[in-house]
Amino acid sequence: MAKQITSRSEDYSQWYIDIVKKAGLADNSAVRGCMVIKPYGFAIWENMRDQIDRMFKETGHVNAYFPIFIPKSFLSREAQHVEGFAKECAVVTHHRLMNDPNGGGVVVDPSAKLEEELIVRPTSETIIWHTYKDWINSYRDLPLLINQWANVVRWEMRTRLFLRTAEFLWQEGHTAHATKEEAVKEAELMQKVYADFAEQYMAMPVVRGTKTANERFAGAEETYTIEALMGDAKALQAGTSHFLGQNFAKAFDVKYLNENNVEEYVWATSWGVSTRLVGGLIMTHSDDSGLVLPPKLAPIQVVIVPIPKPAPEIDEAAQEIMNALRAKGITVDYDTDPKKRPGFKFAEHEMKGIPVRIGIGKRDLEKGTVEVARRDTKEKTFQPREGVAEYIEGLLEEIQQNLFNRALKFREDHTTVVDSFDDFKEVVKSKGGFISAHWDGTDETEKRIKELTKATIRCIPQDVEEEEGVCVLTGKPSKRRVLFAKAY
Amino acid sequence: MAKQITSRSEDYSQWYIDIVKKAGLADNSAVRGCMVIKPYGFAIWENMRDQIDRMFKETGHVNAYFPIFIPKSFLSREAQHVEGFAKECAVVTHHRLMNDPNGGGVVVDPSAKLEEELIVRPTSETIIWHTYKDWINSYRDLPLLINQWANVVRWEMRTRLFLRTAEFLWQEGHTAHATKEEAVKEAELMQKVYADFAEQYMAMPVVRGTKTANERFAGAEETYTIEALMGDAKALQAGTSHFLGQNFAKAFDVKYLNENNVEEYVWATSWGVSTRLVGGLIMTHSDDSGLVLPPKLAPIQVVIVPIPKPAPEIDEAAQEIMNALRAKGITVDYDTDPKKRPGFKFAEHEMKGIPVRIGIGKRDLEKGTVEVARRDTKEKTFQPREGVAEYIEGLLEEIQQNLFNRALKFREDHTTVVDSFDDFKEVVKSKGGFISAHWDGTDETEKRIKELTKATIRCIPQDVEEEEGVCVLTGKPSKRRVLFAKAY
Repeated sequence: MAKQITSRSEDYSQWYIDIVKKAGLADNSAVRGCMVIKPYGFAIWENMRDQIDRMFKETGHVNAYFPIFIPKSFLSREAQHVEGFAKECAVVTHHRLMNDPNGGGVVVDPSAKLEEELIVRPTSETIIWHTYKDWINSYRDLPLLINQWANVVRWEMRTRLFLRTAEFLWQEGHTAHATKEEAVKEAELMQKVYADFAEQYMAMPVVRGTKTANERFAGAEETYTIEALMGDAKALQAGTSHFLGQNFAKAFDVKYLNENNVEEYVWATSWGVSTRLVGGLIMTHSDDSGLVLPPKLAPIQVVIVPIPKPAPEIDEAAQEIMNALRAKGITVDYDTDPKKRPGFKFAEHEMKGIPVRIGIGKRDLEKGTVEVARRDTKEKTFQPREGVAEYIEGLLEEIQQNLFNRALKFREDHTTVVDSFDDFKEVVKSKGGFISAHWDGTDETEKRIKELTKATIRCIPQDVEEEEGVCVLTGKPSKRRVLFAKAY
Repeated sequence: MAKQITSRSEDYSQWYIDIVKKAGLADNSAVRGCMVIKPYGFAIWENMRDQIDRMFKETGHVNAYFPIFIPKSFLSREAQHVEGFAKECAVVTHHRLMNDPNGGGVVVDPSAKLEEELIVRPTSETIIWHTYKDWINSYRDLPLLINQWANVVRWEMRTRLFLRTAEFLWQEGHTAHATKEEAVKEAELMQKVYADFAEQYMAMPVVRGTKTANERFAGAEETYTIEALMGDAKALQAGTSHFLGQNFAKAFDVKYLNENNVEEYVWATSWGVSTRLVGGLIMTHSDDSGLVLPPKLAPIQVVIVPIPKPAPEIDEAAQEIMNALRAKGITVDYDTDPKKRPGFKFAEHEMKGIPVRIGIGKRDLEKGTVEVARRDTKEKTFQPREGVAEYIEGLLEEIQQNLFNRALKFREDHTTVVDSFDDFKEVVKSKGGFISAHWDGTDETEKRIKELTKATIRCIPQDVEEEEGVCVLTGKPSKRRVLFAKAY
């Protein structure tokens, strides 16, 4: 194979980076911690974004756009929020450069210092709630169901392409409601939207739950999360939805007149997913031959390779198959490059995770067949050329489902119920994955377990029944199990 | 009418601002010069963006994403570029805030000063060409046809919603080519894409031409432009496409090995349109009742109003019409608000520029008709309920065409051929619009005319024939007319 990558079992982190680079998804940039998303990686993100956007619109949301800058003083308005967010961020202090009087290029013009520094948004609650004060007067202005697609910046010290970068792309929904019940329902709805997207499109099974107080978003009263398990048995927080109570309404003085003409504070939610999902997608399905993509998000779903090279009768057959596939809304490429051998092309298409490859040779054509290879299992079969588009259509659905099933089985195999701290430590160390254990509900215990094992409480799962037990660390009583894991 | 706006003839600038605000398109924000794009304004921008994006993809371009920050030193690499762009921009100097030791909220942490300041991108040629150096090695890597949708910041002193804001949304294409001819062809192609979009979707006629050396993009060898005429007879530069020669390739040392294995510098283009187009759309078509939108870009194409309020038989008829319209891909709303009278609703829908309104009353239904009002001419007619969806479908096309024709006629009426400087001054002062005049081709004359009249050379039009003449200011010989105008 032309482009070797590190094997997954040998060095998972390096394997991940190799895939990101060799599949042409992203690169590091000249700016510390910021990535360049390359066209193929961006095409995957576009497919994700477009589908998520459709799901937002189907649930009654609209898009808007708020400024990238936040006046520094806004960040101090909500006490918890500033603790969680204000620290590591990009600060704009000046608005002009000038020619260096000493001839050294350009320098910052000291006379162009801003009166108040501006922060490049790490998240937009503050600027948005400042704006909502003008938009909300009466119950008739509610609910306000707004989302924005934007770039945000958090000055991360340790970055990794897609998973943790100083600048990333995301969407952030910010809604305002007349009642607490409605806001809670909204936060739960968006968690469901995220879970549906993850499972139905990314083929990535997720656990739904709520965060402990300790792991909540800064300023939230409840954080709903979806948690996925990556191929190295570490957890990935894939999306969060926050019930913010009246915290931001109070901080920015956003009230409305209710139907009885009484002033009340507004209730809020916020929710977001980011380009981090691309990292999750890679780590859920890929293998030592490269990327594996679920058909519903693959920029190219099918590639046709002439064996060993283009020829009139092969081109004709390829064209006919492409037409039939495109008529079904399936994206397809014909790889006619005369300078590369089929084996080389196969490796390239595997690296890029194209779900289905069709090989067409003259002898196949004489027999009325084509060769169909699926990326997920690498199985190859010969299929009648007649009706091959229908076959492929079904196969893409099968691959989508198989990827989900495979990931679900992996998660089930890597979810362990433990009842002693010795077992807990042993599982963290040897097997990893989710650990279902009793916890006494205190911050201290949660932190102590993290210190001792690096495992954190990923969530208090929603679908787990109450069960009497004792905390795995302290032996104090507990009413339900929570999910621990080491996480990205 | 509920929401009065300033009349266009009385105060054009205020009329414009009134429309932007009362139609719910955008607002000023807490951050100087940055706007908030409200949901209805953003829905228009989304429609524009999605169509432009389709046109880019149809012409072989792909999207990617590059960092928002540019290291300060990059800006000095291309000499002209730094002159044109580096000055008024947002400069990031620190990466951390801390709690004020004196208890005054948060302050910049002086210990977190960046070694090299980062500039929030005013445009991305420098960071992108720095990246292209890694991506381009041989002729096989070319052409590189990449676009990005992004936010950019230019610290403008005088801002106006959509037309000139410190932060704005745009797309910037950056292509790399093996030959000069191919790059020039690309720059011309993108000008054509912009012109087609403006005319076919925005219904905004444009003049295609090239900029004078003086008005060129900083770092370009040729700037192709599309210029539109607004309702106050001022010109708007609506989109530009630049042939950059080898300037950026040389500044960032981007070479490729040609087919003969010889190293050559790469040829470049860049091209962009922005949220400024929303301002152009407003000023091309709107009137004293509010926004007028071309059907192809209207977020809601048809609104149905029950007269005087909802009732079972009206609701049923409305639902039937909505189903028929939606089956044709037409977007439609049914305004059932029981608290607003029809006249109030009509004014609101006119303010929002919804192209077609259907009124349904009980007496109409008995007669088997509905009332159809078009926003562009405000004409109302009664139409048979049977087949009304087909009628509306045709009407939307007619409105789209009528808006274009009307704007084209306005431009033709406001394009004046002049041959003396007295006439020139008189036309600038009294009538405005485009002035077609001879110019001697020098920077000095161009600048002098601007000083004397505030009119600038909008472009050297592409479709104008050579013609012997003398410069309107200096009397020196000239071979062709150029287009002057006062501009936004």
